Amino acid sequence: MRVRKIKDIMDKIEKRESPYFLQDETSYKGRWSDYFGNENPIYIEIGSGKGGFITQIANNNEEINFLGIEKTPEIFHKMILKAEAIEKRKNLGLLLLDGIELSDVFKEKEVSRIFLNFSDPWPKKRHSKKRLTSQAFLNIYSKILKDEGEIHFKTDNQQLFEYSLVSLSENNWILKRVYLNYHPTEDILDEQTEYENKFRKKNQIIYRLEASKRRF
Amino acid sequence: MRVRKIKDIMDKIEKRESPYFLQDETSYKGRWSDYFGNENPIYIEIGSGKGGFITQIANNNEEINFLGIEKTPEIFHKMILKAEAIEKRKNLGLLLLDGIELSDVFKEKEVSRIFLNFSDPWPKKRHSKKRLTSQAFLNIYSKILKDEGEIHFKTDNQQLFEYSLVSLSENNWILKRVYLNYHPTEDILDEQTEYENKFRKKNQIIYRLEASKRRF
Repeated sequence: MRVRKIKDIMDKIEKRESPYFLQDETSYKGRWSDYFGNENPIYIEIGSGKGGFITQIANNNEEINFLGIEKTPEIFHKMILKAEAIEKRKNLGLLLLDGIELSDVFKEKEVSRIFLNFSDPWPKKRHSKKRLTSQAFLNIYSKILKDEGEIHFKTDNQQLFEYSLVSLSENNWILKRVYLNYHPTEDILDEQTEYENKFRKKNQIIYRLEASKRRF
Repeated sequence: MRVRKIKDIMDKIEKRESPYFLQDETSYKGRWSDYFGNENPIYIEIGSGKGGFITQIANNNEEINFLGIEKTPEIFHKMILKAEAIEKRKNLGLLLLDGIELSDVFKEKEVSRIFLNFSDPWPKKRHSKKRLTSQAFLNIYSKILKDEGEIHFKTDNQQLFEYSLVSLSENNWILKRVYLNYHPTEDILDEQTEYENKFRKKNQIIYRLEASKRRF
């Protein structure tokens, strides 16, 4: 059943021939500027979910190239539909990909910023390696990010944020800004995710940080 | 009036001849182990206030030497009275001193742990250098702490905690543990301060972190 369901959704995604869906993603490695047709900085979001964040931010910031990355086909399909609902943006692409495979898609220092928005907290300790701020992921981010590149991370999950502060610190990232009760302001490049919208209505705390690689 | 008042309180402190008050504090530099008569680790608290934390923790942990440091004479006087109210502890000393003078009192790597408890937040940006987690203070801590030494910091002040996470990170400290809603547990060496007791009754959030020097 599960296999059938995934095959069905993959069929749907393929047949759609969406201009946003970049199927042969490894073929762009090292030549993303060619794909976008300009030298604008590339910002990626890992775990884009239904795409609320990446489609809005791409729509509002033409001078930056955005790539939304999501590994779950069902959810990726919803993101495609959302992207198509907006006017065609040449600065947006969507990748059906697991974050652990980022090195296959980006060469060293090809990315300027990585967004992690309300990532899965994987609360059990034995699953800690799956968290998007664990050492294995940070090592990959470190490779594909430019020297001055940054991770911008927000979450409502206290334990994940505590874990991430320590993990970033131990893995040689510098915390540039930390918000323990984050509210968007005009000087921060950001958009709300679907999850965040629901969450803010309950008046609960959202945490946010910006971090860059430590230079020795 | 102010001068008169300080002189009066200094007189009071002196005349008390408290065994806890170490007047000639620079004379112990490099020979604190001689003073305590053992090689036990030395833990200091900067900004001890009325002394609730340092007197209790000294009382409960005989195998560690504690020094409480407070710069305001009126408050220091209260701390002395509190220390005297407990049975004489050979592992406790109190210093009337500004944190910025720590290097006059401790030689390099003489201290094993520094406690900062509910430090003054100095909320105005122009006062940020006075915060006990600002660069100037961190540089002093870095000198007097052993390589494996740690800062243990707790506060109710969100802005000060945000500032401190960034300041520690930028000044080459590693965050070992971060608590965004701290409650004491048995595996953490800690005591409540007077301020903390009041604050906990209101059920408000307390932040806590442990940090160590980065080794290159």
